[in-house]
Amino acid sequence: MKILLAPDKFRGSLETDEVCTAMASGVRLAFPEAEVVSVPLADGGEGFAKALTLNSGGEYISLVAQDPLRRPIEAAYGLSADKRTAFIEMAAASGLGLLNETERDPMVATSYGTGQLIADALEHGVESIILGIGGSATNDAGTGMAAALGFRFFDKNKKEIFPQGGSLAEIQSIDSSGIHPKLPDTRITVACDVTNPLYGANGAAYIYGPQKGASPQQVEKLDNGLCHLSEIATRTFGRDTSQMPGAGAAGGVGAGVLWFLNAVLRSGAAIVFEQTQLESQIRDADLVITGEGKMDRQTLSGKLVLGVADMCARYNVPVAAVCGTLALSPEEIKETGITYAVSVIDRPLSLEDAQRNAFALVEQATFHLVRLFFYGK
Amino acid sequence: MKILLAPDKFRGSLETDEVCTAMASGVRLAFPEAEVVSVPLADGGEGFAKALTLNSGGEYISLVAQDPLRRPIEAAYGLSADKRTAFIEMAAASGLGLLNETERDPMVATSYGTGQLIADALEHGVESIILGIGGSATNDAGTGMAAALGFRFFDKNKKEIFPQGGSLAEIQSIDSSGIHPKLPDTRITVACDVTNPLYGANGAAYIYGPQKGASPQQVEKLDNGLCHLSEIATRTFGRDTSQMPGAGAAGGVGAGVLWFLNAVLRSGAAIVFEQTQLESQIRDADLVITGEGKMDRQTLSGKLVLGVADMCARYNVPVAAVCGTLALSPEEIKETGITYAVSVIDRPLSLEDAQRNAFALVEQATFHLVRLFFYGK
Repeated sequence: MKILLAPDKFRGSLETDEVCTAMASGVRLAFPEAEVVSVPLADGGEGFAKALTLNSGGEYISLVAQDPLRRPIEAAYGLSADKRTAFIEMAAASGLGLLNETERDPMVATSYGTGQLIADALEHGVESIILGIGGSATNDAGTGMAAALGFRFFDKNKKEIFPQGGSLAEIQSIDSSGIHPKLPDTRITVACDVTNPLYGANGAAYIYGPQKGASPQQVEKLDNGLCHLSEIATRTFGRDTSQMPGAGAAGGVGAGVLWFLNAVLRSGAAIVFEQTQLESQIRDADLVITGEGKMDRQTLSGKLVLGVADMCARYNVPVAAVCGTLALSPEEIKETGITYAVSVIDRPLSLEDAQRNAFALVEQATFHLVRLFFYGK
Repeated sequence: MKILLAPDKFRGSLETDEVCTAMASGVRLAFPEAEVVSVPLADGGEGFAKALTLNSGGEYISLVAQDPLRRPIEAAYGLSADKRTAFIEMAAASGLGLLNETERDPMVATSYGTGQLIADALEHGVESIILGIGGSATNDAGTGMAAALGFRFFDKNKKEIFPQGGSLAEIQSIDSSGIHPKLPDTRITVACDVTNPLYGANGAAYIYGPQKGASPQQVEKLDNGLCHLSEIATRTFGRDTSQMPGAGAAGGVGAGVLWFLNAVLRSGAAIVFEQTQLESQIRDADLVITGEGKMDRQTLSGKLVLGVADMCARYNVPVAAVCGTLALSPEEIKETGITYAVSVIDRPLSLEDAQRNAFALVEQATFHLVRLFFYGK
């Protein structure tokens, strides 16, 4: 009997690999002889690089890089076991989670540190880079990242400037002549699950600027900066990417990776599914167990749990979903194709208590479902 | 596919028949073509008569009887479909639940109303009576009940007195000559799940008196009264029942039913299992679903859920347990032989919210477990 564990994280309590560990322990309690395969999942946000690194059996590379405010921090990225692929996420060096509330300032916050991680991966000789851009603190359209990779930015006086969200409008030219020599030959795939254009009412500044700390006046200035940079970049790189879905992701990094890294944007879930060979793992499983912290309407438009359910349906493999909060009705669950869903909560209790006991609760819920499912089989 | 629903009540939220209804609805949502058989369970406490009446397909008889303080109330008992058996519970007319906190007084509270229900059943010509004695407000050793059935009690001046907990010591003789003529020919079985003797440190007054409102001084007086009555009754009926396990149940009604009704004491669960033919229902079920409000260490020494689990194990039938609070570890669940246990709680919430939504929560949990269990079958 093969049981495949393919959960998302439980936000606020368990990382995706911890969920796998708890589930695996529950399976063993019920059914010690089962074959258990763990595929921790993630979308492009926090935990993306870790999930991919774990899945590949790879290792972490740690280095000192610049945080969004250019302070030195220890940041890490993953290398696949065969060293051919690097797994990087913006949250590691350029994440909003690195700043406290008062430090948030997309006028100055830079993606430079992410560029440093990419440069280090290039030094390691990788053939491809998979970059998650969720959770960024920046609105610099990836210009900081580009600077770390050797791009140079000049103002109208041909004076070199350090690009920042608040000064994008000063950029008049971009020089690619000094970029890292391995950059052009490295395939870069970017996990992007939003569809915003670079600027305008649905653009990066208006939609994501406020949560990164921008005032209404700053939002307007940031938006103008993105619009201006887009003109310069379009002229420099020969294509206008500003209206492409996802160009506005991560403060314009979506557009930036198209200009500077010649990257391809894809859904984070699709990347993870492919990298983990999830489909072939599902095909010969007897039971798949997925899950996430909260199953609600967002799950129905999400790509991870629903993506797992869709693949399971395709191969007629039953799929159980374990979650903290189950806010979908039996009818809604039926429509997803999920065979079984359960909240791990085992008594009336508070969110804090549930989160504190999450590991044991996931273990227990998995134990029970596995025992029931395999009864008599 | 036959699914047998055999739950206990969810105390504080759902009666046992409501639990069955919610479970049946969940089964139908998952698996409309399943054969569903509902056997609401109960031990000798509240809900006992209702569960047995429903199981027998019988009907309710309602009459005006005396409550523990001799006030008129509407009280009901059940008759089996074939009218041969009556199902009565003390809680209906002599229950602690009929009194508010300040009214509780085992010195005066009488079991007279229960005797009235028995008398009415005798009038209906039943051949047997099954009596649940849980939840009583009384400490009169069933003398009130006996009085309603024609027994007469006299003091040392040969003056007839109305027997009460506080005046048991006054009783000097008991006259059986005027009892209901059908009483001797009616088989009476009493559901009794405690093992206390009639009096003494583990007797009715010391163990249950305080929760019925007795002060320490009153407890002593009640205990003395029970001891005195036991001597009189032993002389009258020719046997000493005071040390029999269960004699101290229901304020001495355990002893009283042995003296006055020539009854047999049995475990409530055993009676219910037999009356509902649970064993033969389990034997050909594909899945049994049981449950109760709280599964904890008490469940492990309880007779209902564990009794169902034991029978299922005997016939190799899988058994799922649905509960509000699941306070047993996977290891403990394994030992019970229960295949699967789940709390119906679907998110962090308060006990009040859980109880308010209990019906839908039980329905949902049943839906999921049935879908998982029958997947591919």
